[in-house]
Amino acid sequence: MSNVVLSRARMPTTLEIAVIDEYGQRRQQAIAAERALTVYLNRHEIVTLMTLGAEPEALVLGYLRNQGLLVRVEDVEALQVDWDVEAAAVVTRALPEDLDARLAQRTVTTGCGQGTVFGRLLDATDLRPLPCEPLFQAVLYRMLDNLGQFNETYRNAGAVHGCALCRQDRVLGFVEDVGRHNAVDTLAGRQWLAALGEGAPEDAELATADIFYTTGRLTSEMVLKVAQMGISVLVSRSGMTQKGVELAQRFGVLLVARAKGRHFQVVDEQARLVLDAMPALRPGDKAASRHKGTS
Amino acid sequence: MSNVVLSRARMPTTLEIAVIDEYGQRRQQAIAAERALTVYLNRHEIVTLMTLGAEPEALVLGYLRNQGLLVRVEDVEALQVDWDVEAAAVVTRALPEDLDARLAQRTVTTGCGQGTVFGRLLDATDLRPLPCEPLFQAVLYRMLDNLGQFNETYRNAGAVHGCALCRQDRVLGFVEDVGRHNAVDTLAGRQWLAALGEGAPEDAELATADIFYTTGRLTSEMVLKVAQMGISVLVSRSGMTQKGVELAQRFGVLLVARAKGRHFQVVDEQARLVLDAMPALRPGDKAASRHKGTS
Repeated sequence: MSNVVLSRARMPTTLEIAVIDEYGQRRQQAIAAERALTVYLNRHEIVTLMTLGAEPEALVLGYLRNQGLLVRVEDVEALQVDWDVEAAAVVTRALPEDLDARLAQRTVTTGCGQGTVFGRLLDATDLRPLPCEPLFQAVLYRMLDNLGQFNETYRNAGAVHGCALCRQDRVLGFVEDVGRHNAVDTLAGRQWLAALGEGAPEDAELATADIFYTTGRLTSEMVLKVAQMGISVLVSRSGMTQKGVELAQRFGVLLVARAKGRHFQVVDEQARLVLDAMPALRPGDKAASRHKGTS
Repeated sequence: MSNVVLSRARMPTTLEIAVIDEYGQRRQQAIAAERALTVYLNRHEIVTLMTLGAEPEALVLGYLRNQGLLVRVEDVEALQVDWDVEAAAVVTRALPEDLDARLAQRTVTTGCGQGTVFGRLLDATDLRPLPCEPLFQAVLYRMLDNLGQFNETYRNAGAVHGCALCRQDRVLGFVEDVGRHNAVDTLAGRQWLAALGEGAPEDAELATADIFYTTGRLTSEMVLKVAQMGISVLVSRSGMTQKGVELAQRFGVLLVARAKGRHFQVVDEQARLVLDAMPALRPGDKAASRHKGTS
């Protein structure tokens, strides 16, 4: 274990409210929690995140990591979340030299939820080269099957997005939040907590993930965040946008879009995709494979 | 017509890319455009929006309006979008006195796309009281039927959200964008352009809208923006979040969630909802009415 001061401020992710349906019938409906959490980094107010609140420490750590506001997890001395004041206080030994410049510049992105990218993230000049292993269709299908059991909040309440870190078909970690970027950042934060020896036991392998799954769309900033995590396969049940495709080709990220059941689409990347499990061609499948996805 | 200097910088909203499906078959797939547009207000860099690019002037105007950075459309002297440099330059006679303070404070919200709310928008202290007319179920159903023809980009490419301003069952304006908040802001901007005499002829009635429809989730900042537009009925095919419900009850916004086909759910607001078109109760409907929505 490290000697970082860390809170464990879990909150329930759903609550029940009374609704009336089209038949005039009153019943209880679970809805997703949504809480404000203002992040302070060495007393600088950075941002207020709206979140389910299930893993706030991992979310805050991953947010600061993905925004480039924290460079090394070893620099973190304390991370304490207090829901009574809706605040997360992070104390670190080192801040980026250009912190003020980064905070001054904003990009509002098309992602669900955390739609802000500070500073030069969109330049992504400091990306390491990504691995370029082939992806086997059979592995993709097994991974999608394995993901089926992980979307608990969505099944109960809807209105959330899920993300997963996988090593081939094994799901190493799955996170849901009201914003899909919160989910991505929470996984990045759990990687860092595991590196600190502060993570859950099952998170020990998160750093070895080679496939990233999201229920959200494949937009520019989603590709960027996954590339920053050193992962070169990005799978979604939703569609792609222009900038997402451009960045994926620039960074060498294999995009697998509209991945539902046995259907998917990859941008012309066949070199990395091994079609070793082609389903029997049926007209119904073809039609369904054109299904539009949004989120 | 006003004497405001205004560009008309339309861009195509979809493009085709080559994809390979699960059968190894290569074909053309339409995807949503996604362009960066950096907004400058009297030479202050405000934000970079990621957008389809269909109506950038309305988007920028509505963004600044909804962020409280522009208070009166009459103050706008020029709004020029130049896609070559991905920039929108807005010149205004007046800026909020607390502009710097507003820009310094950020809330990253759970909405799709424009996930940033500057300054005190979440306080919403200056909201006018909202109208409290009843909503008739038959009107809701006719409105949903009328909306069916308006989601062109989504049908072609997916990965976009749509929003509409309606007066009862009449669709006055419909906008799609890669971020649902871009769509909301574009409608707010079209209202202002119409007020300037610079809007499309069909936008003349936008200011009379009394129902707002979105394909996105009913989260806190969506309720806030609609309340700021003076509209008290918010309809979505997706689900609700906790803060969305809280703010809707605080401001008197009637939330109609999971509105698809004949299904919907309202938060316990029966006083304003007139159930004058109840469908025949069938088990299949009941099941479907519990369908989870996300986006």
